[in-house]
Amino acid sequence: MPITPDQQAEIDALRAQPTQTLRATAPGIEGHLYKAYEVLDHGFVRVIDYMGDDSAIVQAARVSYGAGTKHVSNDAGLIRYLMRHWHSTPFEMCEIKLHVKLPVFVARQWIRHRTANVNEYSARYSILDREFYIPAPEHLAAQSTVNNQGRGEVLQGEEAERVLRLLRDDAMRSYDHYEQMLSQDGQQGLARELARMNLPANVYTQWYWKTDLHNLFHFLRLRADAHAQYEIRVYAEAIAAIVADWVPLAHAAFEDYRMGGATLSAKALDCIRRMIRGEQVTQETSGMSKGEWREFEGIIR
Amino acid sequence: MPITPDQQAEIDALRAQPTQTLRATAPGIEGHLYKAYEVLDHGFVRVIDYMGDDSAIVQAARVSYGAGTKHVSNDAGLIRYLMRHWHSTPFEMCEIKLHVKLPVFVARQWIRHRTANVNEYSARYSILDREFYIPAPEHLAAQSTVNNQGRGEVLQGEEAERVLRLLRDDAMRSYDHYEQMLSQDGQQGLARELARMNLPANVYTQWYWKTDLHNLFHFLRLRADAHAQYEIRVYAEAIAAIVADWVPLAHAAFEDYRMGGATLSAKALDCIRRMIRGEQVTQETSGMSKGEWREFEGIIR
Amino acid sequence: MPITPDQQAEIDALRAQPTQTLRATAPGIEGHLYKAYEVLDHGFVRVIDYMGDDSAIVQAARVSYGAGTKHVSNDAGLIRYLMRHWHSTPFEMCEIKLHVKLPVFVARQWIRHRTANVNEYSARYSILDREFYIPAPEHLAAQSTVNNQGRGEVLQGEEAERVLRLLRDDAMRSYDHYEQMLSQDGQQGLARELARMNLPANVYTQWYWKTDLHNLFHFLRLRADAHAQYEIRVYAEAIAAIVADWVPLAHAAFEDYRMGGATLSAKALDCIRRMIRGEQVTQETSGMSKGEWREFEGIIR
Amino acid sequence: MPITPDQQAEIDALRAQPTQTLRATAPGIEGHLYKAYEVLDHGFVRVIDYMGDDSAIVQAARVSYGAGTKHVSNDAGLIRYLMRHWHSTPFEMCEIKLHVKLPVFVARQWIRHRTANVNEYSARYSILDREFYIPAPEHLAAQSTVNNQGRGEVLQGEEAERVLRLLRDDAMRSYDHYEQMLSQDGQQGLARELARMNLPANVYTQWYWKTDLHNLFHFLRLRADAHAQYEIRVYAEAIAAIVADWVPLAHAAFEDYRMGGATLSAKALDCIRRMIRGEQVTQETSGMSKGEWREFEGIIR
Repeated sequence: MPITPDQQAEIDALRAQPTQTLRATAPGIEGHLYKAYEVLDHGFVRVIDYMGDDSAIVQAARVSYGAGTKHVSNDAGLIRYLMRHWHSTPFEMCEIKLHVKLPVFVARQWIRHRTANVNEYSARYSILDREFYIPAPEHLAAQSTVNNQGRGEVLQGEEAERVLRLLRDDAMRSYDHYEQMLSQDGQQGLARELARMNLPANVYTQWYWKTDLHNLFHFLRLRADAHAQYEIRVYAEAIAAIVADWVPLAHAAFEDYRMGGATLSAKALDCIRRMIRGEQVTQETSGMSKGEWREFEGIIR
Repeated sequence: MPITPDQQAEIDALRAQPTQTLRATAPGIEGHLYKAYEVLDHGFVRVIDYMGDDSAIVQAARVSYGAGTKHVSNDAGLIRYLMRHWHSTPFEMCEIKLHVKLPVFVARQWIRHRTANVNEYSARYSILDREFYIPAPEHLAAQSTVNNQGRGEVLQGEEAERVLRLLRDDAMRSYDHYEQMLSQDGQQGLARELARMNLPANVYTQWYWKTDLHNLFHFLRLRADAHAQYEIRVYAEAIAAIVADWVPLAHAAFEDYRMGGATLSAKALDCIRRMIRGEQVTQETSGMSKGEWREFEGIIR
Repeated sequence: MPITPDQQAEIDALRAQPTQTLRATAPGIEGHLYKAYEVLDHGFVRVIDYMGDDSAIVQAARVSYGAGTKHVSNDAGLIRYLMRHWHSTPFEMCEIKLHVKLPVFVARQWIRHRTANVNEYSARYSILDREFYIPAPEHLAAQSTVNNQGRGEVLQGEEAERVLRLLRDDAMRSYDHYEQMLSQDGQQGLARELARMNLPANVYTQWYWKTDLHNLFHFLRLRADAHAQYEIRVYAEAIAAIVADWVPLAHAAFEDYRMGGATLSAKALDCIRRMIRGEQVTQETSGMSKGEWREFEGIIR
Repeated sequence: MPITPDQQAEIDALRAQPTQTLRATAPGIEGHLYKAYEVLDHGFVRVIDYMGDDSAIVQAARVSYGAGTKHVSNDAGLIRYLMRHWHSTPFEMCEIKLHVKLPVFVARQWIRHRTANVNEYSARYSILDREFYIPAPEHLAAQSTVNNQGRGEVLQGEEAERVLRLLRDDAMRSYDHYEQMLSQDGQQGLARELARMNLPANVYTQWYWKTDLHNLFHFLRLRADAHAQYEIRVYAEAIAAIVADWVPLAHAAFEDYRMGGATLSAKALDCIRRMIRGEQVTQETSGMSKGEWREFEGIIR
């Protein structure tokens, strides 16, 4: 269970104290504030704070373009225009701060997104909890045979049970030894900054993560994508659901142009033009490699 | 006058509409929201939005250091500790968005602070107003004779008048010609993106500028410093006054450790140790160059 | 003339002194080092230094993906794969340092690319030269009637002459006054940091600009684009020509996927699928706005 | 042993092939190129490439300050001036690319330095080697009793042996199970992206890491500091030794102003002034907290 009763009481208390502000508020995200949305077996995503809403994007764009934005009839149209033409700065005018609990191997992917502010729980200062990610049986997948970084079939029977047992036993044993090494009961007790090295990458950590909407969309595009590892994708999906309530116009444009869209090469565009004119185009006549053609077909079929 | 009656009415309307929020609010900055603080002859600084307060800094630090922060008795002490030890990430958890109207030559210095989000009024899209910075007589300074990038005495009499007349006349004439070139009355009218090149660097522009508190402090340290050019320093000072109300504990620590503090070299520290022991140290026995010794004396005398 | 005989002699001297290095060298760019490629009437682009080549991209990718990259037959294929799938970090392993002389209004657009290192000539410290960008007659364009930020027809006859005269006269007069204000001949002399405010935005400045290949490609995609302002586009084109010699494989992939490619929305992809199946799709049945449909037709026709 | 004979042969081959270049070369670092400097039990640091030298810093500063830099007599003096006055951009004009092999828990600290380019070995694509960091007995330290994030005494006798046995056994067992889960011998074989979660944080990873000299100095200041964890400090020290040969003037300035220097608060400066005048200042009369006073005494005694 990711949230203790104490933590839930704290969340309830925070949610019971509305204050007055002159700032722009986004009603759609107020309902999410502080609540813990469970992800994986012990993880969660919580919105701690936010700045701005759809109007803040429009407002920033109108500062930049002045009278130049007047011909766009409405906010939705302007936001779609900005997204379509890669005008990133207006989206940077919105900011969100999340509290995330996540396995270390997920955190290691996540942190590669550099344009963000992070405060992570420090295992130099403090002792980690006995919480490890153990995949649900339906997510225990074999190595893909076609994709070097992907998953194939779900593991079956005996093998699945063996893997789960190994993961659980190793996690518990590592944690037992972590505690034994730290213990100051009848011994000196190993430094925390050293003892932590014994913990496997499925141990849970947590952090505050703050970023702007443009960079968040970039994160979501890569991590909510079907090719992302399942264990980070579920975090991205939980966040995307919150974003849809926070900035519904921007999120809809993002869905259309980024998540549902595709970037096509000059070669691919040329093939499309030929195909629309009725020409039969094959991989051989496309100028693309086999892998590229396969991806291209995935997009246009 | 930097603010038109229409703009003032808009500000009043925004300030008349408090809403409820579950977010942390910082009462000290709510009183500043939207208001235009005049800077220079036509410029201003306005707070458009903010995220976080002193508690948000403490909260982020406690996520990172867990039980490790318990021994620090209170928030003020913890914030001072974080500032003293260059723990920058907790300060990054606060964010502020400003609307600034400023001369282009100030904007050119300001933009060198890269870790910020900016939407500037675009002179490709829109027509700039006839507003130019003309220094007040008491800020019309001669070139410093000791400092290549500094100011010396205030210009006097005839010379001061001549300079002001040149600045005013050139600004007005440039703007007249800007308008003439743009005009579509009986002619095609030059493209805005070209016509703007005729405007001098004291023309006013405006932007939305958003940054986190850590980077804002860095900006303030450099730009509110006595060596900064007067015309950007007044903006930094106006912002610093707002920050003091927004995050009073963090601002007090910043004043003590950054604005009022100094970084001393190993050589300088060695001199200090000798001087405290009663030794007479001179530039010759200090190991420092003359320029460095002069700066050192400025700090310790 | 952008380069003085002294500067040319310095360039020749630098090019006459090859040294030995164990670093990877890219023969294609060695021939460009230090040379000044003229841009606009007084500007230039010079390569001062570089790090890496096509192999450095491949090498970094192989560190990341290990055995996972072996199935891609060759360097060109791997680089195309990385570009297609937005793997940006391998491209960040190459770095270039340029010396650029450019008008201030171009510099103001350029500096918006934040992920770069810049040292600009400081008009607080030093005196700017009497050099201003005056458009060639064929680039003196009217405001576009369809695009708020674009150009239309070239100005003709009387109007063109009048505009050029205004730009030239204002530039010369501003500079005369700049010199008069700075002068210490029989007067105190205005501080340089103040006098510069009288100079219009077509005055030339210069800087060292250093960035990695990923961010350079991002810059080129936006600034070598047909919608970029002509005066920055010519710089982007001059740089692109150098990049083509520096990292020919990466540049070819960039041309195919970014410059010649297009990002299509989910709606647009749906239309394409319908059109390939032989369906007649119109703006009305596309689900797109008029502006969006016009852009879509521009891509597929 | 961190380097295999094959890898050594590759290094030797790279070092046997000097080429000619027109770029600036830094002789002091050429001797380090490609060589593996051993760090910890299986780690290393290797210089893969570099751009610039001390002269590049000076050159960039002179572009910025023009005639304004002429009064500084020489390169060493100018570089000291830049460092003393926090002029960071000239140092950004130098760049270095390293190949580092390091334990995952060290990598997790290191990656917090965001202004860098990184390509890390991917355990989604490829299989990690059986290499784990096991501290040497003299680095097996107890938790500090005074510092929440520090180390105290070295562990003794029985306890030390027990800790080492636990670390070694858990590492080996985890790796055995990692291999068993991955194996496709008579079973499907778990996906690599899942199996890796069983490996503890002392497993070795590797990456290419590229950054500019300003950010590298920032990294070294924090990570070569006495308060940094030993296991990252040894990497920082190995890098610092290379930097001293690469840019000796900049490194000397860095040592004096950053590593050997200290930042003092306004309160601390006031105490120093009083002490130099002969006044007896105690914690009680200093205005500092006990912790702050203790740190202050550490600096001035």
